[in-house]
Amino acid sequence: MGERAFQDQGSVNHCHGCGADNERGLQIKSFWDGDEAVATWKAEPHHCGGSKEIVNGGIIATLIDCHSLNLAIAHAYRMEGRSIGSAPRIGYVTGNLNVSYLKPTPMDQPVELRARIAKIEGRKTWVTCTLSAGGQICATGDVLGIRVERD
Amino acid sequence: MGERAFQDQGSVNHCHGCGADNERGLQIKSFWDGDEAVATWKAEPHHCGGSKEIVNGGIIATLIDCHSLNLAIAHAYRMEGRSIGSAPRIGYVTGNLNVSYLKPTPMDQPVELRARIAKIEGRKTWVTCTLSAGGQICATGDVLGIRVERD
Repeated sequence: MGERAFQDQGSVNHCHGCGADNERGLQIKSFWDGDEAVATWKAEPHHCGGSKEIVNGGIIATLIDCHSLNLAIAHAYRMEGRSIGSAPRIGYVTGNLNVSYLKPTPMDQPVELRARIAKIEGRKTWVTCTLSAGGQICATGDVLGIRVERD
Repeated sequence: MGERAFQDQGSVNHCHGCGADNERGLQIKSFWDGDEAVATWKAEPHHCGGSKEIVNGGIIATLIDCHSLNLAIAHAYRMEGRSIGSAPRIGYVTGNLNVSYLKPTPMDQPVELRARIAKIEGRKTWVTCTLSAGGQICATGDVLGIRVERD
C-alpha cells in the first residue's frame, strides 16, 4: 500500500466518519490495494450495539459508507491523472446505502473494509464493500455515490 | 406522547445510537405517536458530513436504524401486553438497512424521525422510517429487524 491514506491526502476533511480533521469522528483511513480500497478500523467501547460485545449497526453503516465514497473520490482523481485533494476538488455524496448484516461484528478485534467499483455512469458511481473481522465477512454494503462540486 | 422514551424504559441499554447509558452515544429518544414512533434529535458539530453544513450519512443511517429497531421492540412488548424492558427482555438486531438520501440534511436544526411497522413475519419485522428537517423529508429508510433473546 505504501502511500498515505486518501483522507490524509485531503479526499475529505471534516466528515464524521472519515475526516482527518474531525477529532471526534471515526477517522477511518483508506488505502489503495490494486483497484480496490482497504481500511482497518478498531471500535472503542462506546461504539457497541445492543450488546457490549458487538459493533453497532450504524457504526458499520458509517464505515461502509465513508470507505466506499473515499474509493469513488480516489478513483475519480486517478482517472483524471491528478493527486487526491488537488484543485478543483472532487466530492461525492451518498445517494443510497444498502447494508446487509450477515453475522455479529465483534468489538474485540479490528475490522477490515474492502471496497471496489461496481459501475460508473456519469456522475454516479456504485461501490460494493465488505466488512470482515477475523477473516470472516460480517456485513456487505452497496453504496451509490453522486459526484458534487467541492470548495 | 406523554410516556417516557422507549430507551428510558429499558428498550436498549448500551447501544451507540440509542442506549440511555451510553454517554458517548447519540442518545436518541423514541416515543409512541399512535401506531408510529417519533423521535427528535439535534446534531453536534462533529456529526457533519463532507460539508460542515450537512449531517453525515452514517449518522443518518444510525438514527434510522436505531429508531426503527426501537419501534420493533416497543411493538413486540405492546403485542404481548407487557411493559417495555420487562423480563423476559425482547431484543432486535438489524438484518438489512437501506437508506435513500433525498436531499442534504441541515446541521442547524433538529431532525424528526418517524417510523412505522410495514410487515411482520415470525421473528422478522420490517420498519419504514423517514428523517425530516424543517418539514421536508431528507432521507427514507427500510429496516429489517430480527428478534433475538436478551439477557
